[in-house]
Amino acid sequence: MHVLIVGAAGMVGRKLTDKLVRDGSLGGRGVTRLTLSDVVAPAQPQGFGGQAVTDVSDLSTPGAAAKLAALRPDTIFHLAAIVSSEAEADFDKGYRINLDSTRALFEAIRQEGLKSPYNPRVVFTSSIAVFGSPFPEKISDEFIQAPLTSYGTQKTIDELLLSDYSRKGFFDGIGIRLPTICIRPGKPNKAASGFFSNILREPLSGQEAVLPVGEDVRHWHASPRAAVGFLIHAATLDTAKLGARRNLNMPGLSATVGEQLDALKRFGGEKALKLIRREPDATIAKIVAGWPRDFDPQRAVALGFKAEASFDEIIKIHIEDELGGKVGG
Amino acid sequence: MHVLIVGAAGMVGRKLTDKLVRDGSLGGRGVTRLTLSDVVAPAQPQGFGGQAVTDVSDLSTPGAAAKLAALRPDTIFHLAAIVSSEAEADFDKGYRINLDSTRALFEAIRQEGLKSPYNPRVVFTSSIAVFGSPFPEKISDEFIQAPLTSYGTQKTIDELLLSDYSRKGFFDGIGIRLPTICIRPGKPNKAASGFFSNILREPLSGQEAVLPVGEDVRHWHASPRAAVGFLIHAATLDTAKLGARRNLNMPGLSATVGEQLDALKRFGGEKALKLIRREPDATIAKIVAGWPRDFDPQRAVALGFKAEASFDEIIKIHIEDELGGKVGG
Repeated sequence: MHVLIVGAAGMVGRKLTDKLVRDGSLGGRGVTRLTLSDVVAPAQPQGFGGQAVTDVSDLSTPGAAAKLAALRPDTIFHLAAIVSSEAEADFDKGYRINLDSTRALFEAIRQEGLKSPYNPRVVFTSSIAVFGSPFPEKISDEFIQAPLTSYGTQKTIDELLLSDYSRKGFFDGIGIRLPTICIRPGKPNKAASGFFSNILREPLSGQEAVLPVGEDVRHWHASPRAAVGFLIHAATLDTAKLGARRNLNMPGLSATVGEQLDALKRFGGEKALKLIRREPDATIAKIVAGWPRDFDPQRAVALGFKAEASFDEIIKIHIEDELGGKVGG
Repeated sequence: MHVLIVGAAGMVGRKLTDKLVRDGSLGGRGVTRLTLSDVVAPAQPQGFGGQAVTDVSDLSTPGAAAKLAALRPDTIFHLAAIVSSEAEADFDKGYRINLDSTRALFEAIRQEGLKSPYNPRVVFTSSIAVFGSPFPEKISDEFIQAPLTSYGTQKTIDELLLSDYSRKGFFDGIGIRLPTICIRPGKPNKAASGFFSNILREPLSGQEAVLPVGEDVRHWHASPRAAVGFLIHAATLDTAKLGARRNLNMPGLSATVGEQLDALKRFGGEKALKLIRREPDATIAKIVAGWPRDFDPQRAVALGFKAEASFDEIIKIHIEDELGGKVGG
């Protein structure tokens, strides 16, 4: 089968590529062809037995989506987006990349199907940013989508298009609302959510990390490994079970910063805890206060999606997948 | 003040125009200028003291929205849309008229504001079609928007854009989700919802009407007069009270077909009831089964929106506004 990943150069795209190359199959079918697309060149995958092509495209440019759809991949992972802060700062770019590009891709698939029957699985990564406060204590599967950012608005619109295109039979879509990915590998970045990863990743490598909020702040997490698992499961499950509601809250772990630090201590000891520098930041605290804290993702759990049950698990995964099995520092 | 009505030639647009002409003011400010726009020529209003201009535009054509926004109206009522059945039958046209035109209007207002400060009130008519079954017994203000039609999808996307453009300060928007308008004046049409009006309007004028569903079917109604009242109230209320959630379920009357017929009998007697021809239609019954039956529109009620409390009231309004005060037949 032929798998297309749009947004293949991002963190989740790279991990998904690695997983597909490692498994060599998806849902019991051999992956013979991989097309890796992004606005910057994705790395050529190592050790893949099939044909892998990397592609540099901006789906918001005319013809780019049609070119990819014309390859008629069996499964399309659409992960491409600009992040929340950039979409908020640049209104036009946010709508162009996060809405128009997605719509162009969906429409290109539909147009391809008008030429001759074509009905690929489309897995779309949405976000918990589709929800805006005020929240109930746990967000249910039937909670209103009233986003408070342009990014959340764009993701919600993409979800609606995905549902309608799927309902009309233009493709077989599923949207998954990822929790905040923790522990995000790489360097600390300026995303307001960055500290959730920084406070674990950095001390586990002997580096200082800034904690801008209080220990009572609660948030919704899943590991990068869980995120890839969600994508694979979404690509292979029986979508007849979804009914008309094709966008799902993914499972995750609701935990406070204090619980994160308790887990950090179990792995890195007092030495790791001492690397946390408390620098309260009212701006970040205010942004974070508008984010979901907890979910009751009954549908996704019933459909077999799985996330971590503790921050110990999340830290273990980071140590295995990123640190070669060893806590550094 | 200058009021623009987009979709002015439709039933609600005409009634809104009449009301503004009759009142001569909106929220205590004199209406000195009316621009009436639609894809077909709106009628020139009679007896209006100010300047009225009629305009034939299709907002999905390049430049059309910019032309209207350049007039810098103080209040914009955006009522234009193609109906559910047409949007379902013609996918491209539905998205072009119900999504792209609305987005073009919103974007034209934003572009106008980039030239020099401009922040009009924008009142947008949405629909209860933004909701899809399965429903709770009463739909709350926090219920998920999971539409089951392209029309409902387009209206939901429009609502999201309205919220985001308002949040960014590009205009001061409010979206109102109208109940089914009953009693809709005019001839019976082929809309699946038409019978809700037909079974009252036709017998009250001595004509036969077909009832395609059972008497236990429950639905959500408001009179044309209530709909115009919602629009006026939405144009004049303090939007600071809305917070971030600018799209509201309007109040209405939840009633069964049986309750409609009981009210009909009180106004038209047995003679009127005998004009109902029962012709069960499984297709219509199935469509109607997917529609909302009842709401708990707490926010709109608290904000002062008002609908009818009984079908007797709805029939009285029809007799006053459409039949010159007399039951015919």
